[in-house]
Amino acid sequence: MPAESATSSPVRQPVAGQNQQPEIHLSHRWKWSSQQAISFLMQQGVENPDVISLAAGLVDPASLPVAETRQAVQELLAVPARGRQALQYGTTAGVEPLRRQLVQHLARLENVEPDSLGITPQQIVVTTGSQQLLSVLSEILFDPGDICLVAAPTYFVYLGVLEGVGARAVPVQTDNDGMRMDDLERQLGLLEQAGELDRVRMIYVVSSYENPSGVSLSADRREQLVEISRRWSRENRILVLEDAAYRELRYDGPELPSVWSFDRDRSSVILAQTFSKSFAPGLRVGFGVLPQELVAPFCDRKGNEDFGSASFCQHLLAQVLAQGQYQSHVEEVRRACRIKRDALLQAAEQYLAPLEGVSWLQPHGGLYVWATVPEHISTGFDSPLFQHAVQQTGVMYVPGELFYAGEPAGRRRCQMRLSFGVEEPDTIREGIRRLAESIRAITSYQSVTSYQSVTS
Amino acid sequence: MPAESATSSPVRQPVAGQNQQPEIHLSHRWKWSSQQAISFLMQQGVENPDVISLAAGLVDPASLPVAETRQAVQELLAVPARGRQALQYGTTAGVEPLRRQLVQHLARLENVEPDSLGITPQQIVVTTGSQQLLSVLSEILFDPGDICLVAAPTYFVYLGVLEGVGARAVPVQTDNDGMRMDDLERQLGLLEQAGELDRVRMIYVVSSYENPSGVSLSADRREQLVEISRRWSRENRILVLEDAAYRELRYDGPELPSVWSFDRDRSSVILAQTFSKSFAPGLRVGFGVLPQELVAPFCDRKGNEDFGSASFCQHLLAQVLAQGQYQSHVEEVRRACRIKRDALLQAAEQYLAPLEGVSWLQPHGGLYVWATVPEHISTGFDSPLFQHAVQQTGVMYVPGELFYAGEPAGRRRCQMRLSFGVEEPDTIREGIRRLAESIRAITSYQSVTSYQSVTS
Repeated sequence: MPAESATSSPVRQPVAGQNQQPEIHLSHRWKWSSQQAISFLMQQGVENPDVISLAAGLVDPASLPVAETRQAVQELLAVPARGRQALQYGTTAGVEPLRRQLVQHLARLENVEPDSLGITPQQIVVTTGSQQLLSVLSEILFDPGDICLVAAPTYFVYLGVLEGVGARAVPVQTDNDGMRMDDLERQLGLLEQAGELDRVRMIYVVSSYENPSGVSLSADRREQLVEISRRWSRENRILVLEDAAYRELRYDGPELPSVWSFDRDRSSVILAQTFSKSFAPGLRVGFGVLPQELVAPFCDRKGNEDFGSASFCQHLLAQVLAQGQYQSHVEEVRRACRIKRDALLQAAEQYLAPLEGVSWLQPHGGLYVWATVPEHISTGFDSPLFQHAVQQTGVMYVPGELFYAGEPAGRRRCQMRLSFGVEEPDTIREGIRRLAESIRAITSYQSVTSYQSVTS
Repeated sequence: MPAESATSSPVRQPVAGQNQQPEIHLSHRWKWSSQQAISFLMQQGVENPDVISLAAGLVDPASLPVAETRQAVQELLAVPARGRQALQYGTTAGVEPLRRQLVQHLARLENVEPDSLGITPQQIVVTTGSQQLLSVLSEILFDPGDICLVAAPTYFVYLGVLEGVGARAVPVQTDNDGMRMDDLERQLGLLEQAGELDRVRMIYVVSSYENPSGVSLSADRREQLVEISRRWSRENRILVLEDAAYRELRYDGPELPSVWSFDRDRSSVILAQTFSKSFAPGLRVGFGVLPQELVAPFCDRKGNEDFGSASFCQHLLAQVLAQGQYQSHVEEVRRACRIKRDALLQAAEQYLAPLEGVSWLQPHGGLYVWATVPEHISTGFDSPLFQHAVQQTGVMYVPGELFYAGEPAGRRRCQMRLSFGVEEPDTIREGIRRLAESIRAITSYQSVTSYQSVTS
């Protein structure tokens, strides 16, 4: 059984063809993949192009590396034999030059020598963005009804991936240090009591600057997480999937060791990363470091899906990493995103702080600020606030309820994710001003109508 | 239930991790995707690098378009705003500039004006090679146990995709005009009698220069196929998936209208194409034209898997198509492949014709020659012939039995697919000479031992 859908958008049903042709029968897999909130969000963006988007989770478009890419392609295609290699099929797991560069890249991020990493390029798989890593991994690990523990809140698109394979997402409480380890143990205990411990396959965690909360898992908890996953691995191994998509977007605060670094024998933690935030999403290059015995099963499934991701993009990125243009580009992305984060936080101080019951977290990195409005104001797609923001003041956010697994009734409905990646600083400030205006409008309307909903 | 595995390679089992960690539990989806013959074949290629490969289904590596790609990238990145667009996320269905070019491209192939095609760019989805099109389509159409009718023989990798979703492949007899329509009706009748007509979702056909047989479906049968699929669509629509991967690799013989062109209201046939054969596999760009009501379900599933294929490669290919470098490149690929086909056919005349009971088909396009040896000689991975060819004379082919769906006992075991795409003409001739030597060796050995197998 899939978890409940994370969106309140209307169900899209296939329609019958022309000429009285009977309906096309669609699979359960399709049903589990449909009604994803991200489709509804993208549609809202298309239908309301003049709205300021504090919704899209993209990096600064102005910083996309056109010059760096042009130079790398020139080098790559300068020697015909090498150019032909880049235009040929690669292997399903990814092309060798990139996988070798990724060992160096990881060593830099982990602050160790490549030889001390304890992995070979053969443990690295390259995917079409880290999204495909999350998807293929879920395909090979979860049968319908299997369980994944997730933070509450967590990355809503991964909740959709879990739905897509019919898995159950069990929420674990969080605080300002990320997923709470005491609640993780409590949830595992409850599952054990229910006789379902053998259905637990994985614990999913966005370790740095979590999407949506911006919170990072503390160093202590990173070590504990690995220890807990091992201690509760009885009949089956409980893996940890560390989604480190944002680790390179650090603006201040401490640099934390990865969860993966605490998995000494590289048997329990899967590390997922991407170049979509730090370089260019259009290349669609993500990668994962897998326990050795998962590599072949992963490639079995990925081979069935696509024979391997675009080798041209992989060779291109290997060239970028080898030439050293990458580091300076990431510095530039950080600089640009930090300015935008500061713009959002300053605007929040100016426009949101005066509103009663409105608060937000201050992230040290990533792309998101997590805000909470008074409990009686709902932020969902069908709420008066969302409608007012999109249609009256002209600003869009992502409703907080999308980021919670489990029954809709149990989700907090008074939160929102505000992204600062896409818009320019002045536009971000204007967006927050508009949001404050909408919150004020809904608050005063609701107090007039004794907190009754304005929609009926 | 999945169909029987199409390979005789040994089962790969996950092994337990270090430190007595319990095993990683893998899903049914993984099991259905494992043991694919293509993995075994690729491994054979890696382990025997000096062997002449008449196995790999790749185009002429020397013709890969390095200069064309370099020029297109320069144009694409010359204007920063356009370059940034190519480095940004696209939409799940594919980027607009490419989908618009694909309408023009299809119109050229169908010999009609774009306006007469009866489709919009919104009915075209762009995928990571046509492999992903086949995979995602199968995900949304087949529940475990659902049925797909396929030619015998047919593209073995698609048989693996069907296994991967737990679907059943039902073989339909073929002759030199492709899938036999009388046997298709007979199989549909048998399924109706068995009460399983409502489980039939699709008929899969490689319409031009079929992989592996090189045979094309005749024009008459193309029209009949659409008519039959509609007539047997009672409670559910039975779709036709036309895999036209090789349609542009025509060397002689007639130019046939697509099966898709007979589907007047665009409601029954899915047309799948790729640029992996005609331009460059490393870009991994394939596409499909779908009945309108399938587009949204397709994108639901693809969104879950990767948010869309690499937009950089899509913009690059749109540029290539717009600049008109594409047509001249395809001409060049055709010229090179035709020389290689002729080299293989001439060598077969010289070396294989003298061998009793050996025959082959003469393809008008594509990359494959389908050969048959005497009935008592098996060609499989574990056969004396395959072992002798790979280890003694040094040549590799793809065993014919892989291309048959259904029970292994019912498959013909005395055929092989010979590819002429990868090696140079002289090497192809030497490969056929070696193959003849191996066939002669096995034939004489088997007549000495009264047709008993040399392995025991």
